[in-house]
Amino acid sequence: MVNITAPLRIGYMLFPAFTALDVFGPLNVLNLVSIKHNMTLSLISNDLSPVSIDRTIVNGVAGGMLASSASPNFTQFVLPTHTFATAPPLDVIIVPGGAGVRDVNGTRAHVDWLSSRFDDPGLAYMMTVCTGASLLARTGKIAGRNATTNKAAFNWVKSVEHAEDVNWIAKARWVVDGNVWTSSGVSAGTDMTLSWIEHLYGKNESESMRVQLEWNALNQTEDPFAAYYGLT
Amino acid sequence: MVNITAPLRIGYMLFPAFTALDVFGPLNVLNLVSIKHNMTLSLISNDLSPVSIDRTIVNGVAGGMLASSASPNFTQFVLPTHTFATAPPLDVIIVPGGAGVRDVNGTRAHVDWLSSRFDDPGLAYMMTVCTGASLLARTGKIAGRNATTNKAAFNWVKSVEHAEDVNWIAKARWVVDGNVWTSSGVSAGTDMTLSWIEHLYGKNESESMRVQLEWNALNQTEDPFAAYYGLT
Repeated sequence: MVNITAPLRIGYMLFPAFTALDVFGPLNVLNLVSIKHNMTLSLISNDLSPVSIDRTIVNGVAGGMLASSASPNFTQFVLPTHTFATAPPLDVIIVPGGAGVRDVNGTRAHVDWLSSRFDDPGLAYMMTVCTGASLLARTGKIAGRNATTNKAAFNWVKSVEHAEDVNWIAKARWVVDGNVWTSSGVSAGTDMTLSWIEHLYGKNESESMRVQLEWNALNQTEDPFAAYYGLT
Repeated sequence: MVNITAPLRIGYMLFPAFTALDVFGPLNVLNLVSIKHNMTLSLISNDLSPVSIDRTIVNGVAGGMLASSASPNFTQFVLPTHTFATAPPLDVIIVPGGAGVRDVNGTRAHVDWLSSRFDDPGLAYMMTVCTGASLLARTGKIAGRNATTNKAAFNWVKSVEHAEDVNWIAKARWVVDGNVWTSSGVSAGTDMTLSWIEHLYGKNESESMRVQLEWNALNQTEDPFAAYYGLT
């Protein structure tokens, strides 16, 4: 566990067409935690251009990633604070999912950055939300580890480079294996983050955040979506 | 009901120190809906400066709104697309909450804009999430209507100008009164949005969005947070 009396240095990796809730569910928890506990946030991307939020988490093939044909201007952008080149030392890295992960060439730099940071002995936690697990799997660094991911996209994630070396758990809201925490799809990332806050700061703190968010949580083993998507 | 064969023109009002999930929970639902249904999104603010996301939803007094003393640089910014002066005609306006609503002078222009848009006969739905209801209440336009708001901030919202004329419902995940939809705190906005999608497009559509988001929903009358905060 990290020294939680120090500033906890959190980095959120962004890429074009990330899923909104994959980032802003966990971040809303952390925004509340940051009121009381000293922490820093870096939003880290390829460059400092505003980063787009996606319109699909399931059918995100290359042509459909950045705009749906039905609503081409339904777009939101978030400002990064750091690039891969300028990102500070980090205790925690969180990787969201989203349609953008389907762009394997476009996310090569992201996978390379995750790969180098995974080897940083100062990194205490590597966390993924939703299909963000595909980017971490592609590093080859979680071979032999237990992990989970978005249930609608489960079989796609299992198909990426090096994913065959990961022990994918279908029925789990989130999975912890050493310093690697991986959540199921979208909303599951917020449940995982609340659990991680409990792990760091205790149940009173995580429960305080949950009720302030009026969040209806699922437990680690509660995953109705695995069965819904026919994963057993 | 609006003509859902036309582009559905949605405007999300932003202000400094809005709560992340108040915006990006509902928007993640709408991002998915926009893949299939023609809709436009405007992110509307005072000006086109990047808009900050808040670090508190409960203790947000003026000095604490934009930064917590524990973590002064724990900040996220989103880009607006329109100003109050340039916002297009809208079928739907959604108003988030957040610490920023406590800045009564700073949100005067927002209240004035809501007030003028409320009188637009083309506006089919006016929706608020969390303490966004305080901005709508301040317009005086929902006098005599049923509404709800964030449970931790319930009594504060009831104290704003014109709020005494509103029939505040303590135990409700969300409330519908004519064209005014108001949700309880933070996560409740996403439940309300899913219900609104059901109202517009049917249960199959809203349920499809819910499972893609792996969202654990509460129903309209399920509100464990009212009792938690001693509201009866």
